[in-house]
Amino acid sequence: MSAPDRHVLGVVGSLRRGSYNHLLLRHAASAAPERLRIEVVPDLIDLPLFNEDLETDGLPESVVAMHERIRAADGIVLATPEYNFGVPGPVKNFLDWASRPPGRSPLRGKPIALMGASTGRTGGTVQCQGQLRVSLAVLGAHVLPSPPVLVAEAPGKFDADGNVTDEMTRKVTGIALTAFLGLIDTLTPTP
Amino acid sequence: MSAPDRHVLGVVGSLRRGSYNHLLLRHAASAAPERLRIEVVPDLIDLPLFNEDLETDGLPESVVAMHERIRAADGIVLATPEYNFGVPGPVKNFLDWASRPPGRSPLRGKPIALMGASTGRTGGTVQCQGQLRVSLAVLGAHVLPSPPVLVAEAPGKFDADGNVTDEMTRKVTGIALTAFLGLIDTLTPTP
Amino acid sequence: MSAPDRHVLGVVGSLRRGSYNHLLLRHAASAAPERLRIEVVPDLIDLPLFNEDLETDGLPESVVAMHERIRAADGIVLATPEYNFGVPGPVKNFLDWASRPPGRSPLRGKPIALMGASTGRTGGTVQCQGQLRVSLAVLGAHVLPSPPVLVAEAPGKFDADGNVTDEMTRKVTGIALTAFLGLIDTLTPTP
Amino acid sequence: MSAPDRHVLGVVGSLRRGSYNHLLLRHAASAAPERLRIEVVPDLIDLPLFNEDLETDGLPESVVAMHERIRAADGIVLATPEYNFGVPGPVKNFLDWASRPPGRSPLRGKPIALMGASTGRTGGTVQCQGQLRVSLAVLGAHVLPSPPVLVAEAPGKFDADGNVTDEMTRKVTGIALTAFLGLIDTLTPTP
Repeated sequence: MSAPDRHVLGVVGSLRRGSYNHLLLRHAASAAPERLRIEVVPDLIDLPLFNEDLETDGLPESVVAMHERIRAADGIVLATPEYNFGVPGPVKNFLDWASRPPGRSPLRGKPIALMGASTGRTGGTVQCQGQLRVSLAVLGAHVLPSPPVLVAEAPGKFDADGNVTDEMTRKVTGIALTAFLGLIDTLTPTP
Repeated sequence: MSAPDRHVLGVVGSLRRGSYNHLLLRHAASAAPERLRIEVVPDLIDLPLFNEDLETDGLPESVVAMHERIRAADGIVLATPEYNFGVPGPVKNFLDWASRPPGRSPLRGKPIALMGASTGRTGGTVQCQGQLRVSLAVLGAHVLPSPPVLVAEAPGKFDADGNVTDEMTRKVTGIALTAFLGLIDTLTPTP
Repeated sequence: MSAPDRHVLGVVGSLRRGSYNHLLLRHAASAAPERLRIEVVPDLIDLPLFNEDLETDGLPESVVAMHERIRAADGIVLATPEYNFGVPGPVKNFLDWASRPPGRSPLRGKPIALMGASTGRTGGTVQCQGQLRVSLAVLGAHVLPSPPVLVAEAPGKFDADGNVTDEMTRKVTGIALTAFLGLIDTLTPTP
Repeated sequence: MSAPDRHVLGVVGSLRRGSYNHLLLRHAASAAPERLRIEVVPDLIDLPLFNEDLETDGLPESVVAMHERIRAADGIVLATPEYNFGVPGPVKNFLDWASRPPGRSPLRGKPIALMGASTGRTGGTVQCQGQLRVSLAVLGAHVLPSPPVLVAEAPGKFDADGNVTDEMTRKVTGIALTAFLGLIDTLTPTP
């Protein structure tokens, strides 16, 4: 059995304790190929509201720390809900800080996989993921094209202990993680 | 000369002092049809990061105050930059709070006009406005369809005192504000 | 019992015979408020591929005919599938022809309601509707904001005779049509 | 001097003779790294309107031929205008045919670069490219993340012979093509 040689951040896109996206990432961490270690980070998006005036004396400390964690990782799995047919404000705020300063974003060249769980029935965060794909591209990140991991009507797909019980969700998450490891290996070959 | 009988909030979508969107709204306020009073509000988006756990004991105070201002207004002019080909995090965060609780958003039925200024050359916030249009629709707001007010390469279109000098910007802003007053009158006729 | 005094086109967004969107419009026509007559038109999108060179001697005949039908109607209900997370090519092609010539589109000021049925599970055409909303806005059309009529996994929601059996679909379609009649009355009051 | 060892299709997204996107691709073909041969194909999108009923006896001949050309190529450069803040109908129609049958699209795994020229001032096809990015991802294509090649106000950027005269356009096109060759080499290494 091989030890993990790829380390990715599992960024939770909701600040709510007990978020389904946190649980989805916990599942991903346990179901990932053994070479892939997913470190679930529930508070990486907990940052001040973006304001260019806050950059006068350099980026805020919490932003600098976030940048360093991204730089040190081989990739990111971002699991996020969708709010009002779009990216949640706190998630976009995180990306906006991660884009700074222009041209030197730690996201440039970074492999990224998107996942999402929502309580509603409308697409399981598909619109959120589409918007993220567009924003991440202009930052130069490499987003895994497919399969999309979209978990609609989340409450029926987890048990009381927060484990994913839905077979389709388990299957597509597994396929996506294997493909993501492949993307990481392709984009950043190791010696 | 008629006194203003329609009062709308001019919501600034950037927290930066000296924001071009603040200046654009200041121009809009002075150039609006005399029946339309635009109250420029630079800090309405200054809210905590959205987190459903913060709603346990009711909406946060700043959110309640924001809701009340929206409810009291005949409409909203939202002037916002675009970050990373999308809605700025703080603006989407504002909308996410304005959407609560589900089904009782103060934005329901509210007439809204979108404007945007950006320093870049790529469309003058056109992607941001497209995303906002989709989110505002699902909340039941009535967004003015056209003309789009898109101010690209903003630094060259304002003078040192922050006045709009670009003729095209002045013209399209004027057309949009007149159309917006018409939309308000159509949707919410007064006796 | 009042006779219908509002006539809208029910534009089918799929060329396939037996299209679920055709069936959805047939249902809408029978379930509409009695003042609203929906004329289902299965072939209005059957047009040449858009090519500006075809406009040299004026718009093609089929396009002129389509424009006339739109102009004569009090509104449009567009029911369309989603292809590849976006607007179907033939539907966008229809809109592109309906946008001509610039500034004189028959869609300007026209009330429009969007509906969609898809066989897949991903949102029931929600991304298609978002893109349509953006395109229709720049053309100056007034798209009903909400509720969205999104019919995912369509095969399970119609019976063998093509009738809508899904209660939620029937309910939301009814609410949307009533709201649409209200929008038409608001935007284009009759004497 | 090395002979070209990578062959990509330059798909023109407009059927108009004298299309700026055709000219942009012609420029790209001449300015590409010498290892990259771009074959400009002005009529690959000239296909019937998508209709599932046309697939009863297999895909139409013109679609089969298009699939074969895509399969034989190392990648695609798609240069397309934007119509009404979205993907042109004929271009989406091309993608919809290229997506068939489900799960066996010739676009799966294919490297793709997007470019666009528009006569208007609003973003140089940025919204079209965003929508394409979302559709291409679900088909499993690998779209070059950045830099975006966006040519607004095209008439002022070409000379009477159709050559690109705008320095910024020449520069960003060159950067994008070099990056695209790098992406092809990364995704599909040759022995």
